Amino acid sequence: MNLGINLSFAIKRWVEPPVWARLVRETLGLELVQFTYDLLDPWWPTASRRSMTRDVRKAADDWGLKIESAFSGLANYCFDGLLHPDPAGRKASLEWWKRAFDVASEIGAKASGGPLGAISVSDASDPKRREQRYDDLLDSVATLSKAAKSAGLERLQVACTPLTRELLHTVDQARTFLQDLEGRCAVSVKLLVDIGHALYQPLYGPEARMAAWLSGLGDSIGAFHLQNTDFQSDSHWGWPDARGLFDLAAFAGEVRAANLEKVPAFLEIIYPFELTDDAVLESITSSVMHCRREYAAETVDHAQIA
Amino acid sequence: MNLGINLSFAIKRWVEPPVWARLVRETLGLELVQFTYDLLDPWWPTASRRSMTRDVRKAADDWGLKIESAFSGLANYCFDGLLHPDPAGRKASLEWWKRAFDVASEIGAKASGGPLGAISVSDASDPKRREQRYDDLLDSVATLSKAAKSAGLERLQVACTPLTRELLHTVDQARTFLQDLEGRCAVSVKLLVDIGHALYQPLYGPEARMAAWLSGLGDSIGAFHLQNTDFQSDSHWGWPDARGLFDLAAFAGEVRAANLEKVPAFLEIIYPFELTDDAVLESITSSVMHCRREYAAETVDHAQIA
Repeated sequence: MNLGINLSFAIKRWVEPPVWARLVRETLGLELVQFTYDLLDPWWPTASRRSMTRDVRKAADDWGLKIESAFSGLANYCFDGLLHPDPAGRKASLEWWKRAFDVASEIGAKASGGPLGAISVSDASDPKRREQRYDDLLDSVATLSKAAKSAGLERLQVACTPLTRELLHTVDQARTFLQDLEGRCAVSVKLLVDIGHALYQPLYGPEARMAAWLSGLGDSIGAFHLQNTDFQSDSHWGWPDARGLFDLAAFAGEVRAANLEKVPAFLEIIYPFELTDDAVLESITSSVMHCRREYAAETVDHAQIA
Repeated sequence: MNLGINLSFAIKRWVEPPVWARLVRETLGLELVQFTYDLLDPWWPTASRRSMTRDVRKAADDWGLKIESAFSGLANYCFDGLLHPDPAGRKASLEWWKRAFDVASEIGAKASGGPLGAISVSDASDPKRREQRYDDLLDSVATLSKAAKSAGLERLQVACTPLTRELLHTVDQARTFLQDLEGRCAVSVKLLVDIGHALYQPLYGPEARMAAWLSGLGDSIGAFHLQNTDFQSDSHWGWPDARGLFDLAAFAGEVRAANLEKVPAFLEIIYPFELTDDAVLESITSSVMHCRREYAAETVDHAQIA
């Protein structure tokens, strides 16, 4: 099993690269990292960005971390992205993705990704405009795949999200999307499947199961996001959490049964900004220990995690 | 009483200016608006931005709305802003604020604002670095006040937030900050006080009361954010909400007693991205009706709100 961590837990707290790098390696005992654009906005001016990406790469090297990919966080998810109703908004999103590829490349990641965007309520209510947004999206992703290749990346990583106005939100839609892109892309386009998205019952019903996502998408899955959830929200909670109901060990068994053990699985916990640093550190530590035990089947105890 | 709405409810849903403008005027029955940068990222390329700000201004004119100010949303709050530990990060934040002033000016707002930023855990642990961050912040705000004036704005609007590593988080700190800025700024610097920040009990204790913020800050308050809260999180819930405990009518009485009725009060509700559009529309409508009744003391019933 290929367990890593998304740096979402570190935003606004442990933002200096040597600080989060040490935490990930020494405190959490992990080596595999997914960088979050919530730590370094791709929009930041190029000169500022370059000095910051240099520091990220150095810290990863110093602490023996592998930054596998870089991914959208909360900030970019606030916008409609590649599905924005206004062509000016879509153009801005294309530019954001290209700048994100530069960040990913500079920090040594081989993939970059995020959710593709949201169709507005107005566009979603009109079948023609909805179809146009989908067609435009295929063009955008094809264009971006070339930019990703130019930046030296190997993979575009597209998140499945639990809203009908967002693409991609079902197994069938994701498969169709990848089929529609066949032969049009310069790097491979893979899906990121997030537990809390995939099992969101208000959209998918109480029968939603991870096994259906795994068998339906198979090798198209490029990464997982792990989180604890009550299936009633996109929770992004850790372990232990009295509200959380997700059985991670059972999911690990399903991943093995589907021969997807090598797919990187990143714990992505999103804490309220106002939570104390001590509470976040305690939660992220216990959550990683839980994942190492239940997902990676390591024998860990508290003594091993400093 | 001067009741308005922050457009946070509209992000990723009703993003086209004529769509949210109509909703605000026709469905919610309001005229006073605080624009959110979650609808238009100041980082977006200038040409794209200008066509979008033109549309915002036109929609506001068409629907008789007054855009009083523009304010940071979730996206910009993900970063450390003007308190970033890396000079490159602080420089990027200064640039963001200047671009935000351009947006505010182009949409006809007279003020722009947001939270100032967060000190990293590492900087916060070192008294000298912490002091340096504060001194740098004063310089940054003084510089920005000049940029705000050049952009034609009248007011910088600084949010108080409920974290010890964020400035400004107490009445005393906010007063000292404004005193330290005296004589240094080209436009007035005012505070934005948010109910859910000001009464967050894990930081301020169970005795926290709005009256203390009102009497402590008085005329330094340039705006309020209204939200329903359980005082245990920065909730940003609406009304009705079974979890919420905030008595808005009592707060209105305190505002009147403090002679602050003219201060604009913007309802700022933040909905989970995955909530259905119907649920959000129902909640924002009932929340505004609650605010019109309890805060603005209007006689409204459902029939009046389309």
